[in-house]
Amino acid sequence: MCSKDLQVCSSVITIVGERLNSTRRSVAVAIAERDAEFVKSEAVRQTEAGADFLDLNAAARVSQEIGDIKWLIEVVQAAVETPLCIDSPSPKAIVAALEIARGEVMVNSITAERERAGQILPLVRDHGARVVGLTMGEQGMSNTAEQRRDLALTIVDLAARYDVPAERVYIDPLVRPVSTEGAQGRQFLDGVRAIRAALPEVHIICGLSNVSFGLPGRHLLNRTFLAMAMAAGLDAAIVDPLDAGLTATIHASCALLGMDEYCVEYLAAHRGGLLGEE
Amino acid sequence: MCSKDLQVCSSVITIVGERLNSTRRSVAVAIAERDAEFVKSEAVRQTEAGADFLDLNAAARVSQEIGDIKWLIEVVQAAVETPLCIDSPSPKAIVAALEIARGEVMVNSITAERERAGQILPLVRDHGARVVGLTMGEQGMSNTAEQRRDLALTIVDLAARYDVPAERVYIDPLVRPVSTEGAQGRQFLDGVRAIRAALPEVHIICGLSNVSFGLPGRHLLNRTFLAMAMAAGLDAAIVDPLDAGLTATIHASCALLGMDEYCVEYLAAHRGGLLGEE
Repeated sequence: MCSKDLQVCSSVITIVGERLNSTRRSVAVAIAERDAEFVKSEAVRQTEAGADFLDLNAAARVSQEIGDIKWLIEVVQAAVETPLCIDSPSPKAIVAALEIARGEVMVNSITAERERAGQILPLVRDHGARVVGLTMGEQGMSNTAEQRRDLALTIVDLAARYDVPAERVYIDPLVRPVSTEGAQGRQFLDGVRAIRAALPEVHIICGLSNVSFGLPGRHLLNRTFLAMAMAAGLDAAIVDPLDAGLTATIHASCALLGMDEYCVEYLAAHRGGLLGEE
Repeated sequence: MCSKDLQVCSSVITIVGERLNSTRRSVAVAIAERDAEFVKSEAVRQTEAGADFLDLNAAARVSQEIGDIKWLIEVVQAAVETPLCIDSPSPKAIVAALEIARGEVMVNSITAERERAGQILPLVRDHGARVVGLTMGEQGMSNTAEQRRDLALTIVDLAARYDVPAERVYIDPLVRPVSTEGAQGRQFLDGVRAIRAALPEVHIICGLSNVSFGLPGRHLLNRTFLAMAMAAGLDAAIVDPLDAGLTATIHASCALLGMDEYCVEYLAAHRGGLLGEE
């Protein structure tokens, strides 16, 4: 973000717009009713707000996912040129999506589980795509920082076997709600730090909003946690780019962490009115 | 903060209210004109907003500092029972202040310089006070994280020689403006982490607002940096407790870092309307 139109700096943090996800009821309805205007509007708004990728998830109707994701991709690609992040549990849907997705693509997601990785990674390699790797293994979720780091190492090893270099892997250390597991925020942050130390060349991404599940003031919690995660080494995030407070926090974090030389992008964001009420 | 009246949790982070500082023009005028109502109002407002200590600085008129700080303390102590943080470059003014300050007191500040420390630390010991130690040495400012840690170790050693335990020392790793020194934000955060690792029992404090000097959106930068610093191990801050966005960020950070069991304080802050627009 930032570089082109005063949004957030893509050189610093990659923003994946999360809004076109069929777990959102309005999106599921739009897909079912083939409401192209709704989809187009979400794609344009996220792009204008600085999204580097648009996450597309059409998995709500399992039996119709392939037709749904293809329709979604076509509508979005007719509206914007923003790269896509194909978000599906189904290898078949990912195959269908990659056949029509243009340019740079991200695939969301694999885990450290060998079988699924073996289905998805050849597609990622053949399309020169990027891939999100969730820190889950055959034994389930990662709990500690060390487990997250070890699963990240496994994922990067699996990717290398299929000639997908670490530079194209986005490790997601899976944030969990602090409302029910108070220690998981800290374990996540320590995990980001451990992964960054062990794998300097890998990207680290997360779907931020899960941290605030079950609590009020979710925007406040999400942006505060993003600042902490960026300080720990996160360089990509699956978020709502229309959340103005979050965007302002990203600009501020870049300036504070020395990622924005002479605060040039921060000052441009200020002139562009992107720092909110400040 | 928090514990008594839904402000920020003193068990987690100690808030030193910064507003009664004679470098602020309105405060200098109030001191010069003996405007007790102004001073009282600032003391009450900061206390109601949850300040654990009130910083009092009357050093603007050097030749009259002793009379000024004594007047300031008397006015504040007549208005509130909040503990005081005596902020002065002058050992004589600190002596005079400690003679009349009630209860728990913090002295701001010493450095790693032997001579000044030797003047102040006996007073701190004799009054059972707390003391802020700035990471400056005979050679001047600290630049790197390692220098900050080494100076913190020197300060804690000096304090120990005068029987002031580390638990009563608040190390201030001296944040510098990122507008002119882009790498200093990161060096500060790494310094906090290094000090926390080397000295688990010491407190770490900072006068936050210097980080944003020379930039627009200072409230945004200050609260974003505070979240990062808390994640790194900061447990006290010299800030404006009337900054509602900052207070909300502190509540959110406590919840996210597992310092607020079951998010009880966070939820209370929400019910009390302290999370701002969220």
